[in-house]
Amino acid sequence: MLSDSVKNFINIVSKLPSIGPRQATRLAFYLINSGKNQIEELEKAVADLKKIKTCERCFFIYTDRCPICSDKSRLQDILMIVEKETDLISLEKTGRFHGQYLILGGLAKNGVLEPQQKLRLKSLAERIKKEFGGQLKEIILAFNPTTFGDFTSSLIEQELKPFAQKISRLARGVPTGGEIEFADEETLKSAFEGRK
Amino acid sequence: MLSDSVKNFINIVSKLPSIGPRQATRLAFYLINSGKNQIEELEKAVADLKKIKTCERCFFIYTDRCPICSDKSRLQDILMIVEKETDLISLEKTGRFHGQYLILGGLAKNGVLEPQQKLRLKSLAERIKKEFGGQLKEIILAFNPTTFGDFTSSLIEQELKPFAQKISRLARGVPTGGEIEFADEETLKSAFEGRK
Repeated sequence: MLSDSVKNFINIVSKLPSIGPRQATRLAFYLINSGKNQIEELEKAVADLKKIKTCERCFFIYTDRCPICSDKSRLQDILMIVEKETDLISLEKTGRFHGQYLILGGLAKNGVLEPQQKLRLKSLAERIKKEFGGQLKEIILAFNPTTFGDFTSSLIEQELKPFAQKISRLARGVPTGGEIEFADEETLKSAFEGRK
Repeated sequence: MLSDSVKNFINIVSKLPSIGPRQATRLAFYLINSGKNQIEELEKAVADLKKIKTCERCFFIYTDRCPICSDKSRLQDILMIVEKETDLISLEKTGRFHGQYLILGGLAKNGVLEPQQKLRLKSLAERIKKEFGGQLKEIILAFNPTTFGDFTSSLIEQELKPFAQKISRLARGVPTGGEIEFADEETLKSAFEGRK
């Protein structure tokens, strides 16, 4: 009953992360009812994403030059490894870290590093050898405090041990504004052990 | 820190219904990481929505001709009024109704009909006068069983009374697969009163 263009739109949009067929259908009708100008606005916004490049050092995105790696005022010998771009953005918003980054890419559920992730770590190791005489001051592993995150951290820690004086992880504890009463046991254990 | 194309994408996409800034940001990174082909596929799917037209009789959408109004095998003298396209699609999926439709457009929260909705009802009334000698056999009001839906039904019932031998509403009751124990009081009242 729906014409091919609508079916095609629903099909393509419902494959995007966290959008299902129902939401895609609603979006199709919303756009059709909003008229040509709004469709064109979205069309152009999507098309413009093709201008975006990925930095070959840290794998963040940019148009002209990488906002992280091209910023010479940032510390060069401390590096944070994160899973994804949005983690980097959240960490940057704290304004506390002024070093380099490496985006590793989505963690596999089986806790094994993907070939692409191994490549990223290898090229990092080579850069450390070439540019820093073999060792950075510190590498911070900033993965989610989950089983997969912990497992990945351990894997990477083994691999990068020779390339940093210190390898650290983000602290765990009761989140600010959270309540001790409702915190789970593991969180409270971490909060106790990390007390200062 | 994000380049203008990405900010613009997030801005436009997060204005779409039930997509917030967080999901829009994740979509931007997903698309950038998926590469040019997938961005172009989405771009084209969006652009193709411009081909879609809205039927001037029932206000459903089509490319060549309206799948409802152009289908001469459908009953002509029974008409269902629905709020939106997705309601029509769900009702069509039942395969039980083979008449005409009128899509009224989103119901206002204050229970007042929008100028555009009044126009749609007026042009329906005129069509009934011209094509059916003044009266349809039945008009079914198929709005959501909510306060707004009920209120809108009552408004329209008053307005269209002269133009149909019978004006009906969809039945209410315990949904198939639902449990009486957990049904709310209003639903159970309706189920009792509509028993047969």
